[in-house]
Amino acid sequence: MPKPDLTALLDKVRHTAGQYAEVPLADNCLQPAGPFSEEERAAVYRAVYARRDVRNEFTSAPIPDETLRRILQAAHAAPSVGLMQPWNFLLIRSDEVRAEVHEAFSRANDEAAQLFPDYMGHQYRKLKLEGILKAPLNICVTCDRKRGGDVVLGRTHNPDMDLYSTVCAVQNLWLTARAEGIGVGWVSIYNDADLRSILRVPEGVEIVAYLCVGFVDKLYDRPELEAKRWAKRLKLDDLIYKERWNSA
Amino acid sequence: MPKPDLTALLDKVRHTAGQYAEVPLADNCLQPAGPFSEEERAAVYRAVYARRDVRNEFTSAPIPDETLRRILQAAHAAPSVGLMQPWNFLLIRSDEVRAEVHEAFSRANDEAAQLFPDYMGHQYRKLKLEGILKAPLNICVTCDRKRGGDVVLGRTHNPDMDLYSTVCAVQNLWLTARAEGIGVGWVSIYNDADLRSILRVPEGVEIVAYLCVGFVDKLYDRPELEAKRWAKRLKLDDLIYKERWNSA
Repeated sequence: MPKPDLTALLDKVRHTAGQYAEVPLADNCLQPAGPFSEEERAAVYRAVYARRDVRNEFTSAPIPDETLRRILQAAHAAPSVGLMQPWNFLLIRSDEVRAEVHEAFSRANDEAAQLFPDYMGHQYRKLKLEGILKAPLNICVTCDRKRGGDVVLGRTHNPDMDLYSTVCAVQNLWLTARAEGIGVGWVSIYNDADLRSILRVPEGVEIVAYLCVGFVDKLYDRPELEAKRWAKRLKLDDLIYKERWNSA
Repeated sequence: MPKPDLTALLDKVRHTAGQYAEVPLADNCLQPAGPFSEEERAAVYRAVYARRDVRNEFTSAPIPDETLRRILQAAHAAPSVGLMQPWNFLLIRSDEVRAEVHEAFSRANDEAAQLFPDYMGHQYRKLKLEGILKAPLNICVTCDRKRGGDVVLGRTHNPDMDLYSTVCAVQNLWLTARAEGIGVGWVSIYNDADLRSILRVPEGVEIVAYLCVGFVDKLYDRPELEAKRWAKRLKLDDLIYKERWNSA
């Protein structure tokens, strides 16, 4: 039986599989693993609890290249379906592009304010919801839906797994940024077509997150929307079920 | 002008807003913030790099309640759009329910194997892709799309932000679990209708992640799909653009 045309196939399935399809599977990469030390565990929890969605606390200090590299590497170490690694990172620093993005945000934010009942719209307009111009760096994180080729392991039954992988990358970046003293704010108020046009994001690539990124010297001691009494923390116990939905 | 009927409105907009709509916004919750110590930073990066998608390395050791609580609290501390906190956590331990879920996985996995070209399908079938029965605990993480009421701050222009928030919760859980010595594997190969029926997840609630959770005594030193030569790590530099798409 003739061998398949590997080059042609690889072109089709791209990165997900096939490169080593005729090499025996390695199974000797297991290493001992256990819990972290108490201090290390505390540091991981500290990152989780001290992380904030930052809108206004950015300083203008530029982010050193090696620091930025560390948080991007952390994002790139996120889990991805079929090891698809569908993300790209657009680093936006220019005043010009940020001004265009800010304009797109402002338009959408005006639309948004009108969706709330009157007395809430009033509160809404008082909230600062982005740091596009204040943060020295913006990062747009995208998901290339075609990166894995036609069939991606683990994505066969849930095509949105690649978007979820991309969000895991965002959260890795967010938590490690916090540990570096860098704040991150996720802007979600824009019309997709506007941002897509400004950043020239092609069809087939989804914009997942638009992040404002910069050093911070202070942060809210709880989520800003909670501090500003827009919303309340839910009780965890109310969110846990056992075995099946709605059974405690 | 009469005041709005606050109770009725609250019922509508639920948790996102309104509870304190007539109370002045607090702005005094800012605390000093800076980078973590070098040791703390290293611990956060360690969690990021040592985290694995676990399929087979689970031990049968039960997870103590207080440990489980810590990782669920970490999930609950994730960012969410408009502080919507749309997640629920279904803790599944019974042999019966796990067997049903495993059957649903197996059916879908057979379908999946047939989607790959022959020689890849052969490799695919050799991969263990879940630890549903081996892990002592499964956690289904869902997203209640209606939790925030009709209008949620930050979700007005991207209705999928609640799903993304839920993924952030998953990643918080995943990273803190690693620090606790607990492995997590995300199963995505199932037909949504099957899992929904088994777990009785109602309409309006999306199943975002089905996680296998248990202590591990060893882990792959790199992603298992990379170790087993199913896929390759991409170069980060190839994934970074500046200012706009496709410009380095």
